[in-house]
Amino acid sequence: MQVFTFERGENMLSLHEYESRIDRPVMMKIPEFNRENRLKHILFSSQMDKMMIDMLCRTALKIKHISSTKPGSDYLLSLLSHKRAMLYFTQVSTRTFMSFMAASQILGIKCNEIRDQNLSSEFKGESPLDSIRMFSSYFDVIIMRSKTPNFAEACAYLMNDLDQFNQRSVPIINAGAGADEHPTQALLDIFTLQRTFGFTSKKDSSKWNYYRELKKNHPDLTKGLNDKVYGFCGDLRRGRTVRSLVNLLSLYENISVAFISPDSEDFRFPEEEIKRLEHRGVTVYEYFSLDEAIDKVDMLYMTRIQKEYDKPDQSKNYDELIGEFILTPERAERLKTYCPILHPFPRNEEIPFEIDSNPRAMYFRQARNGMWVRAALIAHLFDVESQIANYYQDKFSEYHNYNMEAI
Amino acid sequence: MQVFTFERGENMLSLHEYESRIDRPVMMKIPEFNRENRLKHILFSSQMDKMMIDMLCRTALKIKHISSTKPGSDYLLSLLSHKRAMLYFTQVSTRTFMSFMAASQILGIKCNEIRDQNLSSEFKGESPLDSIRMFSSYFDVIIMRSKTPNFAEACAYLMNDLDQFNQRSVPIINAGAGADEHPTQALLDIFTLQRTFGFTSKKDSSKWNYYRELKKNHPDLTKGLNDKVYGFCGDLRRGRTVRSLVNLLSLYENISVAFISPDSEDFRFPEEEIKRLEHRGVTVYEYFSLDEAIDKVDMLYMTRIQKEYDKPDQSKNYDELIGEFILTPERAERLKTYCPILHPFPRNEEIPFEIDSNPRAMYFRQARNGMWVRAALIAHLFDVESQIANYYQDKFSEYHNYNMEAI
Amino acid sequence: MQVFTFERGENMLSLHEYESRIDRPVMMKIPEFNRENRLKHILFSSQMDKMMIDMLCRTALKIKHISSTKPGSDYLLSLLSHKRAMLYFTQVSTRTFMSFMAASQILGIKCNEIRDQNLSSEFKGESPLDSIRMFSSYFDVIIMRSKTPNFAEACAYLMNDLDQFNQRSVPIINAGAGADEHPTQALLDIFTLQRTFGFTSKKDSSKWNYYRELKKNHPDLTKGLNDKVYGFCGDLRRGRTVRSLVNLLSLYENISVAFISPDSEDFRFPEEEIKRLEHRGVTVYEYFSLDEAIDKVDMLYMTRIQKEYDKPDQSKNYDELIGEFILTPERAERLKTYCPILHPFPRNEEIPFEIDSNPRAMYFRQARNGMWVRAALIAHLFDVESQIANYYQDKFSEYHNYNMEAI
Repeated sequence: MQVFTFERGENMLSLHEYESRIDRPVMMKIPEFNRENRLKHILFSSQMDKMMIDMLCRTALKIKHISSTKPGSDYLLSLLSHKRAMLYFTQVSTRTFMSFMAASQILGIKCNEIRDQNLSSEFKGESPLDSIRMFSSYFDVIIMRSKTPNFAEACAYLMNDLDQFNQRSVPIINAGAGADEHPTQALLDIFTLQRTFGFTSKKDSSKWNYYRELKKNHPDLTKGLNDKVYGFCGDLRRGRTVRSLVNLLSLYENISVAFISPDSEDFRFPEEEIKRLEHRGVTVYEYFSLDEAIDKVDMLYMTRIQKEYDKPDQSKNYDELIGEFILTPERAERLKTYCPILHPFPRNEEIPFEIDSNPRAMYFRQARNGMWVRAALIAHLFDVESQIANYYQDKFSEYHNYNMEAI
Repeated sequence: MQVFTFERGENMLSLHEYESRIDRPVMMKIPEFNRENRLKHILFSSQMDKMMIDMLCRTALKIKHISSTKPGSDYLLSLLSHKRAMLYFTQVSTRTFMSFMAASQILGIKCNEIRDQNLSSEFKGESPLDSIRMFSSYFDVIIMRSKTPNFAEACAYLMNDLDQFNQRSVPIINAGAGADEHPTQALLDIFTLQRTFGFTSKKDSSKWNYYRELKKNHPDLTKGLNDKVYGFCGDLRRGRTVRSLVNLLSLYENISVAFISPDSEDFRFPEEEIKRLEHRGVTVYEYFSLDEAIDKVDMLYMTRIQKEYDKPDQSKNYDELIGEFILTPERAERLKTYCPILHPFPRNEEIPFEIDSNPRAMYFRQARNGMWVRAALIAHLFDVESQIANYYQDKFSEYHNYNMEAI
Repeated sequence: MQVFTFERGENMLSLHEYESRIDRPVMMKIPEFNRENRLKHILFSSQMDKMMIDMLCRTALKIKHISSTKPGSDYLLSLLSHKRAMLYFTQVSTRTFMSFMAASQILGIKCNEIRDQNLSSEFKGESPLDSIRMFSSYFDVIIMRSKTPNFAEACAYLMNDLDQFNQRSVPIINAGAGADEHPTQALLDIFTLQRTFGFTSKKDSSKWNYYRELKKNHPDLTKGLNDKVYGFCGDLRRGRTVRSLVNLLSLYENISVAFISPDSEDFRFPEEEIKRLEHRGVTVYEYFSLDEAIDKVDMLYMTRIQKEYDKPDQSKNYDELIGEFILTPERAERLKTYCPILHPFPRNEEIPFEIDSNPRAMYFRQARNGMWVRAALIAHLFDVESQIANYYQDKFSEYHNYNMEAI
């Protein structure tokens, strides 16, 4: 029984001090959120290096395979059966919420939630950090999406301070708050690309092989994420997911990025960020219509042009404008055979329903991949990855060796 | 790992095409929702024939008995521990919602929910089928109640199409949407009647027997649902549950139905449906006061006369009108001894509280039966009925043989 | 199969009759909610005598220790895995709600909830007792917080009546409804005091001992809750938690209570209740500023002065008034070394953040203790305390003997 663990005079840092910590450049903060090559909290995509990403994706794939059998599912359920999660989504996002719920449930975690925006009014007058500390009293991980910028980060500092004073402290996961980063979305995109660019097929055999088949028309095609042209289309100024994904892609070799958007500051990818990418060795192209770029990309990442951001004086020719950035079936036919179509969803008219049956459409699989990747992240936070790897080795390695290779 | 499973040119059917499929007569659709004598989705009561109904009711009763012990409960919990359900109730219905939650939990299913009508606004601009397909990415069954007519049916078509193209597809359960059918309600009513018309009692012994006792005053009384007069009282025009139940009852032999309602097109059971029933061999009586019919029925199914539907000019004598269709204690005394009183709930004044202590009142048990029947339906969808039957055979058959006979 | 268990003529008691039962003095009601030294429902703090309190606190501490290991957690999860709870919180209270959720989840109970106040509108026109009876059809315990005074109590009567007529009946837990009592809060406060006044420390050894160290400056200090001065500060008129806790404290020996509040009928502890306390042997002091009392108390229980209750004409000097009752760091330094600071939370300005790092601050631990105490109460209701005690004896007794002694 610990009664008095705080030493007098050691003041816990105040919310105000968090602000000065928040204002630092991201790279200075990372050591506080990582620990011995492990993630302690999940806040920024730049917390993950290539090795970490590969490891998380391998775990995600193992979880996917293991959960395909009943005994495998039950094994996963047993891993974190003793943990309870709080999903604190005061900014509504049903997709991300459901994905995290499912990911937690796969590992046996008991879920608790606040999704009702009205409930937050209850906390009026109370410090939001008090609410978070309350959650940390009852639950073992806090997955959060808030409207308050940097709130997840401030919560992570609070937890670190508590940890330092030997008080109860739990991991914080940023589920894409406000204009902040959306690190788990970027990771699921990478996972989807890894699986796609493995170029394997169910029909692969010693006689016929999907990758060799593709090489006939694309002799320079390599497996994996290196040596590719990544196309991003739509509203690239506000697309949080685009920025997070491009950041992770820049970790790979010989990468080009094609930004496809209306020729306006309102939609183009920010110039200072383009410079930063180029500085890291990424080749950047800009296109102002989809037609120009469509046959050049190895991946096409579509995003919504959100009407709510449009300036009123532009609304006249809005439909015409947006028409240039819709993936019509005709345009889709001009994509390379193997080029995956991704979309963070929800979609508007930029991807018509007819495209759903196009073999390049990866966006629904991408969503499901989010569940596996988030389960892998949670498994990582609670340090049960090696248990998953061992179970996989025991029960699945023979059967799935081939597919794991693909990554 | 499946990368490109769709073949080019095979377009997935559009929402518009679903509409033309929806417009077909029910009997034409059923083959798409059933498969080899099993239900694939649960949409209409007419998907179930008598054999199917009997099988589901037997499973429901086994689940009820098995869950009465701790090891039995734990066995049931293990059956579908690896499954996750989405309860998508954009039309609020707490009773049905809770019943499905409990049914899922009995079988170990992890539940996820959307009950907040405001959350649906989030999906504005998105195709509702995209939302459903998102759910099907994360969850293994979708239990839904929507205000949009036929939406559950459209979702089932979407799932069938995905299945056909080797895409992930999950079963859809219609939990009573809008003016659509409410198939699980009808089934729980049948289950309640089966249990009631088994005419067994805890006090049954070799010397005294409840059924033999009843036969003294009712020499023609048979066990089971055949040869009975089924009374329905209240607002029969809009009562979705009445229509679904009558449909199922018409599968039994020598059935009469007594419709008891105000003498007005606004409340009477629709004439074309009466004709259809008679065509199927059901004898139909109509009564315009409860007093006339009260001593003739073997079951009395009460329903609410919903004030919100009343025409303003009728409101003057509304109380007088409704008074004729209230089950007062005096009227209840005139019912046959064994006549069960059912009600789909919630109730208004049509069943006063005093009736709750009347031994004929079955409406609370009826609600609880809904949980067992829904668990049986879910067990059926996931094909674990035979596991339940085997466990029952092993652990319960001796003890409960007598009671199972009752059905 | 029970078909007709009600005997004719035995009317179940009506809601109106509940009202006359509710109006009786508490002590007359207790026999209806307790049974053979066990709690049947949890409604009032006065249902628990000192022996019961000690037993519940011992169970809470065992649950805390057992859940600190993975096998222990899994054992606890197995205990009530077959039970389903309804958390019916039509009066929003996220803290208490989350605490009960976590407590239920620790024991493996599957949780269901109604938290949305709008959902209750659905039940308009329906008797609230019908809603409760519906819940009791699907779930095994109802944990409730309602705005309707005495509603939890009425529900407990309903359940008792059902039980008497051999109908399904489940335990009711009052989670602090309206102006009613908040029995589980009082119990967690006692648990926190027991742990604090055990005066043990991690650093205790044969050479140095925290309690002996304290005795140097406080030679009369005894272990346990007897012989202490309990300070309560803030708005004592409306503080439901203060009243419940003082009631329980009066069970201990040689107790003094110091009420510290503004000198106004609006804030002072009610005079008739002071008389009742004195009648039970409690010495009562009143102070009208925190400064006067600060160095005299062995515990300081802070509460919010809720602005929403203030009379408009007082609002002028409100800040000045409240300033007298804020626990500034300077004041906190004047508290006895071992004096725990408690608060039922949420807090406003009465405890500044700087105090969080003060070793006397117990309010976050107090919140977490609520989870263990509520788990103990639920374990008690379902009669699995002895299983917990046996498991503890087997696996933990050697290791933790020392700490258990502390209570």
